[in-house]
Amino acid sequence: MANIMAINAGSSSLKFQLLRMPEEQMITKGVVERIGLDGAVITIERNGEEITENPSIPDHAEAVKLLLNALTHYNVIQSLDEIDGIGHRVVHGGEKFSDSVLINDTVIEAIEEVSELAPLHNPANLTGIRAFKEILPQVPAVAVFDTAFHQSMPKEKYLYSIPYDYYQQYGIRKYGFHGTSHKYVGQRASELMNKPQSELKIVSCHIGNGVSVTAIDGGKSVDTSMGFTPLAGVTMGTRSGNIDPALLPFMMEKTNQSAEDIIAVLNKKSGLLGLSESSSDVRDVEGKADEGDEKAQTALDIYATRIHKYIGTYAASMNGIDAIVFTAGVGENSKTIREKVCRGLGFMGVQFDEKANQTRGEEAFINQEGSPVKILVVPTNEEVMLARDTMRLS
Amino acid sequence: MANIMAINAGSSSLKFQLLRMPEEQMITKGVVERIGLDGAVITIERNGEEITENPSIPDHAEAVKLLLNALTHYNVIQSLDEIDGIGHRVVHGGEKFSDSVLINDTVIEAIEEVSELAPLHNPANLTGIRAFKEILPQVPAVAVFDTAFHQSMPKEKYLYSIPYDYYQQYGIRKYGFHGTSHKYVGQRASELMNKPQSELKIVSCHIGNGVSVTAIDGGKSVDTSMGFTPLAGVTMGTRSGNIDPALLPFMMEKTNQSAEDIIAVLNKKSGLLGLSESSSDVRDVEGKADEGDEKAQTALDIYATRIHKYIGTYAASMNGIDAIVFTAGVGENSKTIREKVCRGLGFMGVQFDEKANQTRGEEAFINQEGSPVKILVVPTNEEVMLARDTMRLS
Repeated sequence: MANIMAINAGSSSLKFQLLRMPEEQMITKGVVERIGLDGAVITIERNGEEITENPSIPDHAEAVKLLLNALTHYNVIQSLDEIDGIGHRVVHGGEKFSDSVLINDTVIEAIEEVSELAPLHNPANLTGIRAFKEILPQVPAVAVFDTAFHQSMPKEKYLYSIPYDYYQQYGIRKYGFHGTSHKYVGQRASELMNKPQSELKIVSCHIGNGVSVTAIDGGKSVDTSMGFTPLAGVTMGTRSGNIDPALLPFMMEKTNQSAEDIIAVLNKKSGLLGLSESSSDVRDVEGKADEGDEKAQTALDIYATRIHKYIGTYAASMNGIDAIVFTAGVGENSKTIREKVCRGLGFMGVQFDEKANQTRGEEAFINQEGSPVKILVVPTNEEVMLARDTMRLS
Repeated sequence: MANIMAINAGSSSLKFQLLRMPEEQMITKGVVERIGLDGAVITIERNGEEITENPSIPDHAEAVKLLLNALTHYNVIQSLDEIDGIGHRVVHGGEKFSDSVLINDTVIEAIEEVSELAPLHNPANLTGIRAFKEILPQVPAVAVFDTAFHQSMPKEKYLYSIPYDYYQQYGIRKYGFHGTSHKYVGQRASELMNKPQSELKIVSCHIGNGVSVTAIDGGKSVDTSMGFTPLAGVTMGTRSGNIDPALLPFMMEKTNQSAEDIIAVLNKKSGLLGLSESSSDVRDVEGKADEGDEKAQTALDIYATRIHKYIGTYAASMNGIDAIVFTAGVGENSKTIREKVCRGLGFMGVQFDEKANQTRGEEAFINQEGSPVKILVVPTNEEVMLARDTMRLS
């Protein structure tokens, strides 16, 4: 028996869960927000209640100190000795990490080295790693990478069709993201289907703020819709996904913006938000669409169609599939999107069940009985994956 | 009975065919090259022989004059009165033209207006139109647009997931290209399959220097892989197809190039050429691959895989397909690429026949007998389409 902390450190925030392993039972969870800013706040869930505190939190080290104090203060644990391991989410592992890894100085250096591939995320993740290392130096810590699961992609899937030199010199290739989530729901689907992963071809649809679709063959990611960055692939809440690359100079010239400006438009003002001209939140856009707003309807159609098309793409990549899995905020909760995505795939054995689809946030099969391809809803759980890998490697 | 000229005017060239209609029989063809440059040359085919001349050709008007003189001089026709119509290929018709159109001053203005969407091609096409108008003002001329066939795409397929305003203000959307070719091979496939187009769902693969894949449902284009420009979609001879849009600023910064420079790299130094580091020509790369060159092998795999994936994409869009059609230089001639594209689509009823695939440049079925999805090779013939539309509209 062991208690594992699962940590997701952002630039000004730190989300955590404490899990009892191997039971995979959440003991508590919470978040420290506005680190280094005015109005910092710690929120901890205890027995279903939220406790908040508003201390001054100048940096991540202080955030970790206050968080650990709070855990003992509120009797979640009696002593810091009860923390047996720490799993840190790290966004980018580049080509160096195809699995989670026990953190030491060499690993920290390697994470620093790939930071230019995720300049917003990796440095923040490292801040979390360093803060825990300072305060709990004796507790083993493990890094779990968003990109690691996708390192099994074959070369013909991860290379862009640009001069080969750009791959060799600058590491430009498809990396993919949401790997921990895709891996989790792939495993869970195999359990729910009562079939070993080695026998399954799965398309996993992680539909949250970010959206990515992954082809999982025999338990391994063989292709995914995100790319060098999380901007690529399908339509998302505020991200465009793929566009004609030649649009960039055209948009730059027309609107007198820099390349970075346009990328910011594609990251922050596009997707559902840009098309609907109202919101990046599927629930809002669904509401508008129900009221007859045409732009909202078109936005939802585009959002769902892009995912629908990827299911066909990956069915072609794997010569057919056994299951489609929906996860993350929208995937777990929006019956509308799931239905739009699944309709019209009868040719490949997908028989969608409208009734079974009336489910939210729970594990469920939403295919018709006897459907050759199963359709599942599986709430994702990246924290459990962090805890599992921390147990395995520490 | 009528004689129709089919014209494809480039910035310094003018390709032509003279066809007898309605028999669709080619009387002669040829090309004027290096217009406005030193070393201009006219080539005309007569009775299977090539005649060349090397006059000075300052502009397209002179090119047309010399070409028409040559036709009478070599007794291809006895008099210019025997030319009954002229069909001009025009690359971009924007949203204004969803069909070919009889050319008048309003049409010329409209083609000028959309020139900013095809700044290299439309002005050249217009030069050809104006030259013929000057010399044969009484002969009806028709414009046939590369984009027109794709104007039937529904909104959820042609809109990019960017702020809606970019579509309204600047016309940024997917237009698609190679429309005349896709339309021709779609019609031809329907004839060869002995089924009306209204009953057929076809994926058409135009694989030449440029490569595009089109979903044709009931004779109408419902989606296509090229986009706002012909850079988008699959891997081509020298073009990258889709990449993560965020690569642009990264590549700009790493190599100290402008956005236009990077787009030039993506247009001219990418694709097969960039990946193989040897050639943009499939035949050359196949040769290298046969000798064991690994980069050439990977380049071919990527080239074929991207098309393979689009077949799955469009099967999902149309809920299954009845036929795959290969056309253009590579599609008509490379059995290697066709095989790589078609393998592993058994799940959707595609049964490829290796023996039947040993064909080059001729109409053929290359599926196994009884394959639910037919696979066809259909040499494209854009000139016949130009002549047909000229007959229909003049």
